[in-house]
Amino acid sequence: MKQQKVLINGERLQDTLEKFADFGRTDNNGVTRLALTEEDKQARNHFEKCCEELGMVVKTDDLGNIYAILEGIENEKPPVVIGSHLDSVKKGGRFDGVLGVLAGLEVVRTMVDHGIKPRISVMVVNFTNEEGARFEPSMMSSGILSGKFDKTDMMNKTDSKGVTFEEALNSIGYAGEEKNRLKEAEAFIEIHVEQGPVLEEESLSIGVVEGVMGMVCYDIEVTGESDHAGTTPMHRRKDALFATNNLITTIREKFQNLDPALVYTVGRMNVQPNIHTVIPNKVSFTIEARHQDTQTIKQVEKVIKEISEMVNSEGCNVKTTRLWDRNTVWFDENVVESMEQSTASLKYPYKRMVSGAGHDAQFIANYIPTGMIFVPSVNGKSHSEDELTTWKDCEKGVNVMLETVLWLSH
Amino acid sequence: MKQQKVLINGERLQDTLEKFADFGRTDNNGVTRLALTEEDKQARNHFEKCCEELGMVVKTDDLGNIYAILEGIENEKPPVVIGSHLDSVKKGGRFDGVLGVLAGLEVVRTMVDHGIKPRISVMVVNFTNEEGARFEPSMMSSGILSGKFDKTDMMNKTDSKGVTFEEALNSIGYAGEEKNRLKEAEAFIEIHVEQGPVLEEESLSIGVVEGVMGMVCYDIEVTGESDHAGTTPMHRRKDALFATNNLITTIREKFQNLDPALVYTVGRMNVQPNIHTVIPNKVSFTIEARHQDTQTIKQVEKVIKEISEMVNSEGCNVKTTRLWDRNTVWFDENVVESMEQSTASLKYPYKRMVSGAGHDAQFIANYIPTGMIFVPSVNGKSHSEDELTTWKDCEKGVNVMLETVLWLSH
Repeated sequence: MKQQKVLINGERLQDTLEKFADFGRTDNNGVTRLALTEEDKQARNHFEKCCEELGMVVKTDDLGNIYAILEGIENEKPPVVIGSHLDSVKKGGRFDGVLGVLAGLEVVRTMVDHGIKPRISVMVVNFTNEEGARFEPSMMSSGILSGKFDKTDMMNKTDSKGVTFEEALNSIGYAGEEKNRLKEAEAFIEIHVEQGPVLEEESLSIGVVEGVMGMVCYDIEVTGESDHAGTTPMHRRKDALFATNNLITTIREKFQNLDPALVYTVGRMNVQPNIHTVIPNKVSFTIEARHQDTQTIKQVEKVIKEISEMVNSEGCNVKTTRLWDRNTVWFDENVVESMEQSTASLKYPYKRMVSGAGHDAQFIANYIPTGMIFVPSVNGKSHSEDELTTWKDCEKGVNVMLETVLWLSH
Repeated sequence: MKQQKVLINGERLQDTLEKFADFGRTDNNGVTRLALTEEDKQARNHFEKCCEELGMVVKTDDLGNIYAILEGIENEKPPVVIGSHLDSVKKGGRFDGVLGVLAGLEVVRTMVDHGIKPRISVMVVNFTNEEGARFEPSMMSSGILSGKFDKTDMMNKTDSKGVTFEEALNSIGYAGEEKNRLKEAEAFIEIHVEQGPVLEEESLSIGVVEGVMGMVCYDIEVTGESDHAGTTPMHRRKDALFATNNLITTIREKFQNLDPALVYTVGRMNVQPNIHTVIPNKVSFTIEARHQDTQTIKQVEKVIKEISEMVNSEGCNVKTTRLWDRNTVWFDENVVESMEQSTASLKYPYKRMVSGAGHDAQFIANYIPTGMIFVPSVNGKSHSEDELTTWKDCEKGVNVMLETVLWLSH
């Protein structure tokens, strides 16, 4: 007879998610829980309390990252780590980040319920300031852990009121010791809402995430001449806005000929002097593009370089500046594989996919074998009070996490 | 033997223009002389002093408009009026407006030099707040005189510091009596810098202005959906910026097929939320177009109406709102004809043209036979410290004014 699978308690998971949504709940059932605020402190305190009730050992490092450990039999060995972040953006949702931390809590609760003592320890982590909504950049603490960011620089980052990260960390009492930082681990696994419409569109419950897409972001500045809108004949103009219009059309045409999975966005555009009766003399805009293949990103950069040589567009000059880029981060194939097998064993419909958004996991992947699970976002919405993942999908996702942890820690 | 023409004193005109540029002169040899400020008051005081020295009678009306009258033999008859405005925009030029007032002063000085007492009176007027740079709208006082604007409304207009037009007018001591307002006149003539590049491009010294172009200005609002720039596939987007880009391309293509003299400008554009990693959910922009023929402006409006029905562009909605419009103002053919004959008699290269910019003359034309003269703007620049009209062209333009005044007032 086939062994009965151990499953999580979906109702308890829902209750816990709802409980945590109280820490910063907005009028429209969203959450505002910026990093290192009173709301964040309350959520952290409650998280620690829940973990201690399970007999977990709770530690904090110098970045405010919280580690709750369910000790295994071979306690000296590197643990299996589950985690994400408790902070949110302003008027964000009830699932982004917090699901990945509470998934860890629910996994441990289920193991304790069933008297499962793992061979190696299981750790649940909350990373400080993933969103970067109060202190830029985003994924700050996982960035420091992985060597991507400098601690001193980050400690001096200020919020809109001039408060430094360090001051805020001390003020909520979550500055711990550097020796507690996450070092070695058997694996790091993170469950997160997709923040896109793909899983829902394809009626899938689980995305097994193979990596995080590479991207590149340019600032393009088009300089023409300001003249009177009424007295300057069309042939005499150096209209920076019309030149920009041409450039964007050309960029889109060329990008459409690249891989269909390429996504690209002109998110920011500023026009000068921005007066209805004056021909614009300057337009600056960003163009960012994401794709998993380095080759496609290179083609994107080639298009943008060609654009900057189109000096004749409406008589304007074009200057391109690369604001930043990142290569695609590929997760550990063994971890991904075990997550996929866990999903398959639970008979949940799934697909492998690459994340378009950034997550703590992409930095942690730098030094720990890592994988991620996505659950569907209704209408693809996130960073919004409308953010929604059904309770059923949350439950399925955390069951995949449990199955994976049981496999990796057994 | 042919009679020797009476000509103005070019050197004196230059000295006077330079003297007035001291009232608000900027570091870069421009002028900041906003309406009803201390600088404006100084320029007004000096203008009145110059006029009084010529034996002119100076009056002020309830809007602060200054009228200086050189009495004619038939003093009870409506005068020939020359005028423009002494105010400037912030960091404006030394010619825009002030040339039209000082042209009147130089014409009268020349008549006095030569002992010419006109048959009918010659009046020089300074209109308050033509620029609208401190108190919107522009051409405020000529607008009230012609019945376009309501006096009470205008008196309550405030500057950026909350000072009302009325308070500012009283504070510089230039609130006069309503009975002094400009009523009947034989003609109103205004000389102004072209503010465009046409005369210079065609190597002409004089533009005989037949009227002021009609125009129409729309606000277009494109609404899509904000989504994550990394996680939303291209086919799922409702990108308001890409939709806007399509609309502008279409508008430009259609406008290019209309009359070549049509000028059109997208001067203002605002993007929301204007974050590089977020697909824009709203873009609003203005499109204004100017042409002398009503029929062409109607075609422009037809194009814009069609655009608003292109709801399928990138899945976004388009809402168009007409912000304002004005019909072409045609000047009095007799006045224009006499200005043209004056120009021809002086053998200055000229052409007839229609103004793309607005001027006090377009409102005064509502109740007084009106005409305008343009002189070239180097590189078409105005409303800028770089604004320049050569002294020689200023002299020629004022000679045309003198010749026209002598003709109309004899």
